[in-house]
Amino acid sequence: MELWFSEKQNDEVKFSIKVNKQLYSAKSEFQRIDIFESNEFGRFLTLDGVMMMTEKDEFIYHEMMTHVPMSVHSNVENVLVIGAGDGGVVRELNKYDNIKNIDVVEIDEMVVRACEEFLPNTANSFKDKRVNLYFQDGLKFVRRLENVYNLIIVDSTDPFGPGEGLFTKEFYGNCYKALKEDGILVNQHESPFYKEDAIAVQRIHKRIVQSFHTSMVYQAHIPTYPSGHWLFGFSSKKYHPLNDFKDKEWKKLGIKTRYYNTQLHKGAFALPNYVEELLKNVEA
Amino acid sequence: MELWFSEKQNDEVKFSIKVNKQLYSAKSEFQRIDIFESNEFGRFLTLDGVMMMTEKDEFIYHEMMTHVPMSVHSNVENVLVIGAGDGGVVRELNKYDNIKNIDVVEIDEMVVRACEEFLPNTANSFKDKRVNLYFQDGLKFVRRLENVYNLIIVDSTDPFGPGEGLFTKEFYGNCYKALKEDGILVNQHESPFYKEDAIAVQRIHKRIVQSFHTSMVYQAHIPTYPSGHWLFGFSSKKYHPLNDFKDKEWKKLGIKTRYYNTQLHKGAFALPNYVEELLKNVEA
Repeated sequence: MELWFSEKQNDEVKFSIKVNKQLYSAKSEFQRIDIFESNEFGRFLTLDGVMMMTEKDEFIYHEMMTHVPMSVHSNVENVLVIGAGDGGVVRELNKYDNIKNIDVVEIDEMVVRACEEFLPNTANSFKDKRVNLYFQDGLKFVRRLENVYNLIIVDSTDPFGPGEGLFTKEFYGNCYKALKEDGILVNQHESPFYKEDAIAVQRIHKRIVQSFHTSMVYQAHIPTYPSGHWLFGFSSKKYHPLNDFKDKEWKKLGIKTRYYNTQLHKGAFALPNYVEELLKNVEA
Repeated sequence: MELWFSEKQNDEVKFSIKVNKQLYSAKSEFQRIDIFESNEFGRFLTLDGVMMMTEKDEFIYHEMMTHVPMSVHSNVENVLVIGAGDGGVVRELNKYDNIKNIDVVEIDEMVVRACEEFLPNTANSFKDKRVNLYFQDGLKFVRRLENVYNLIIVDSTDPFGPGEGLFTKEFYGNCYKALKEDGILVNQHESPFYKEDAIAVQRIHKRIVQSFHTSMVYQAHIPTYPSGHWLFGFSSKKYHPLNDFKDKEWKKLGIKTRYYNTQLHKGAFALPNYVEELLKNVEA
């Protein structure tokens, strides 16, 4: 028997993974949740049929969302993570002793519970005493806060469905407000390659630059996301991701990573010309 | 009607593209050649069902194979290109006035003729007066040469089928011999991500380091190749790709690129930890 999971990454492109078995399938109030087991990728999580993470390459996404801001701001104490029901970002944050509090706001409790059962390698991170889990809409949660966090990480789904509100100008403005004056916002920024995704990249960037005076984009190779070329946004009230990069300090922490390193940090901000153009076109 | 081209990138992973129509299909002495037309990728070429290039993302691969060595060695006059029947590398080389001669050795004349008919955007490059096309086995061609080229670019297929010989220790040794003392070898180096591909990366690197004292690996985002994370080898008798990088000189040439730029040149050599480890494991 052959069992294949296929994701239509857009109308013209399909990515398929051979599956050993389906471990979990449920419909929550917000979305359909599935977890599969495969030879090549280990276990993987999909929401409404869209790839969220695989055991094989989740380290790339989670390390790049976490260690890039944490090596620029050396005194992060209070962090807000929005989305991230799989726990991967929290696992990476847990590696820092200076962090005192991690608020995680995930709209869908069923995602967290499913991950705790089937993806312990990421979801075990929620057990850390510094972590507070809130099952709420991130958009509403952040609205009422002012001058609270040193770092906000937006680990959202794509800009449609339950994650849609996390891509609005209002949301980025509220994140700005919820950050302290040394605050950094990191967000998943979609992919520049396919036509529709590139439009999403532009839309996100346009909205963020309206709130933050430093807004830069960096990239990583994430094979299970459309095109494998994934972008992240780094926005800050105070810090520049390269000029304020504390590479020596970060190295001294001795944090183990499989993708991220301090050379790659710098390289990740060196974008291809065609991506630079996409971004510049909406900066004016 | 829906028509889909699917490539099994390995036993567990399939990548599929919606096709408008098949423009060409033939069997040469060496392989099956197909050219398709699609909405998302424009036209694309496959050999034995394996993706070689698409009109949408070929610029990434071809720019990265060409401009990286050309911005390190500022006086390349004589170039050998092995494989590259689509003409993309030659198109990029044609942008340099200082190049006097480009020998292209492609084993399969039918590939070149098909590309000339259906992929003129790359294959038109063969018309440049400096280009000499040889329809021969690259392995044999390079065997008899000594101290001839400033640059050899190995734009081969994968390490099985007709391209197999271009991944042997003997071949890399012969390339070393065919290069002048200022010579650079650039080769397509497969992908580090999937298990089988990662083994190929290690095998290639092990063989090249036995011939060249400077052998470094760099990367690019190529969405239509397995995992989208693709590697290239830079080996030289004399030049270091970063220490001898002539970024200001290169910028003055005013060469237009859509992926490559001088910041990205440096970033491309900043590899993820897991890739560095793959390579170090065979360097001893």
